[in-house]
Amino acid sequence: MEEKEKAAPKQRILEAAISLFVQKGYAGVGVREIASLAGVNLAMISYYFEGKVGILKAIIEEFFDRSSELFHGIDDVSLSPEECIQNLIRNIVNFVRENTALALVTYNELPLDVPEIAELKAERIMMIFQRISGLIRRFGVDPPDIFLMGMVGPSLMAIIFSNFRVRPVLKHVLDVEFDNTYYEQFTEMITTLFLDGIHGIVARRQSGQ
Amino acid sequence: MEEKEKAAPKQRILEAAISLFVQKGYAGVGVREIASLAGVNLAMISYYFEGKVGILKAIIEEFFDRSSELFHGIDDVSLSPEECIQNLIRNIVNFVRENTALALVTYNELPLDVPEIAELKAERIMMIFQRISGLIRRFGVDPPDIFLMGMVGPSLMAIIFSNFRVRPVLKHVLDVEFDNTYYEQFTEMITTLFLDGIHGIVARRQSGQ
Repeated sequence: MEEKEKAAPKQRILEAAISLFVQKGYAGVGVREIASLAGVNLAMISYYFEGKVGILKAIIEEFFDRSSELFHGIDDVSLSPEECIQNLIRNIVNFVRENTALALVTYNELPLDVPEIAELKAERIMMIFQRISGLIRRFGVDPPDIFLMGMVGPSLMAIIFSNFRVRPVLKHVLDVEFDNTYYEQFTEMITTLFLDGIHGIVARRQSGQ
Repeated sequence: MEEKEKAAPKQRILEAAISLFVQKGYAGVGVREIASLAGVNLAMISYYFEGKVGILKAIIEEFFDRSSELFHGIDDVSLSPEECIQNLIRNIVNFVRENTALALVTYNELPLDVPEIAELKAERIMMIFQRISGLIRRFGVDPPDIFLMGMVGPSLMAIIFSNFRVRPVLKHVLDVEFDNTYYEQFTEMITTLFLDGIHGIVARRQSGQ
């Protein structure tokens, strides 16, 4: 019980920061605003995170820690590479649906040039890159095509994350509800796009085009 | 000459704002900072743009005005729909290469919920949606598949724009130079991904899968 009470403010700070960052962007939010929404005093933020950048680092860390489960089974050779891509896309879509703010803050702030987070980002992205590369090799890319392997992961993330980023605009243009039916259709379409697209790219490479 | 001297501060304000917004995000930049970088006084910003949101509106307007040339020829029925998609992708990649900051500020701030810009965004995005929809119909989507037509444009934009957003991270992971060779390969790969992907989606639809 005592442990739980001690842990609460840290979590409240994180949650307040995520909800403010996703609305206004990291740069548009001050620590006072986070402290006020979290119902803690400024000293607490210093104590737990040292400052605003420490909060962002914790958010990005949490995203990568939790998202590692997305890649579970990605190297399962008892499944076809097509099934692995399909599972990966389904996992990413479900994860972003369930953790939209956490995912969008990470995605939005990824290009932010902050030295305190550079190493963390590079390390985790390299890990994801290697897992996806291993999967793409199974589509018959031989010799390994660094360019293709390096493009699939970021493109996949970009399509899925952007869909959530621009939901208010999309809703207006497409006049849709973002419900289970929508996301089933979305997942199926992205999966076909990537499967047929990757097969097409590999075929072009092999025929020397 | 007098006209040119009068026009200069307005353009300087826009350029200063674009370079600051792309670095720190719209929310992270103050009008004083823009005025100082542009070498104008605050009253000039009020005079030309009314305030910070007016500058952002002008930037987004400029992006959409200039980017309309991307869609030139998209409804040219003397070309195959495949050629039209290929031209469109090539045009977008070249445009973003040449106007990276302008394009990224627009892309980054697109989800920003600002009433002054809502109508402009919705109107211009609807126009792009309609042009791309017309092209996608030519791939044999019958009856017109709103979902597919609504997904291609945003997905294409997301992949291309994100590539520019995460260049520093990509550079680290892939160890590449972002030169002509890179962008030729990138354009070719995105084109194959979308062409084969769209054909695959249409084939699945037609076979009732």
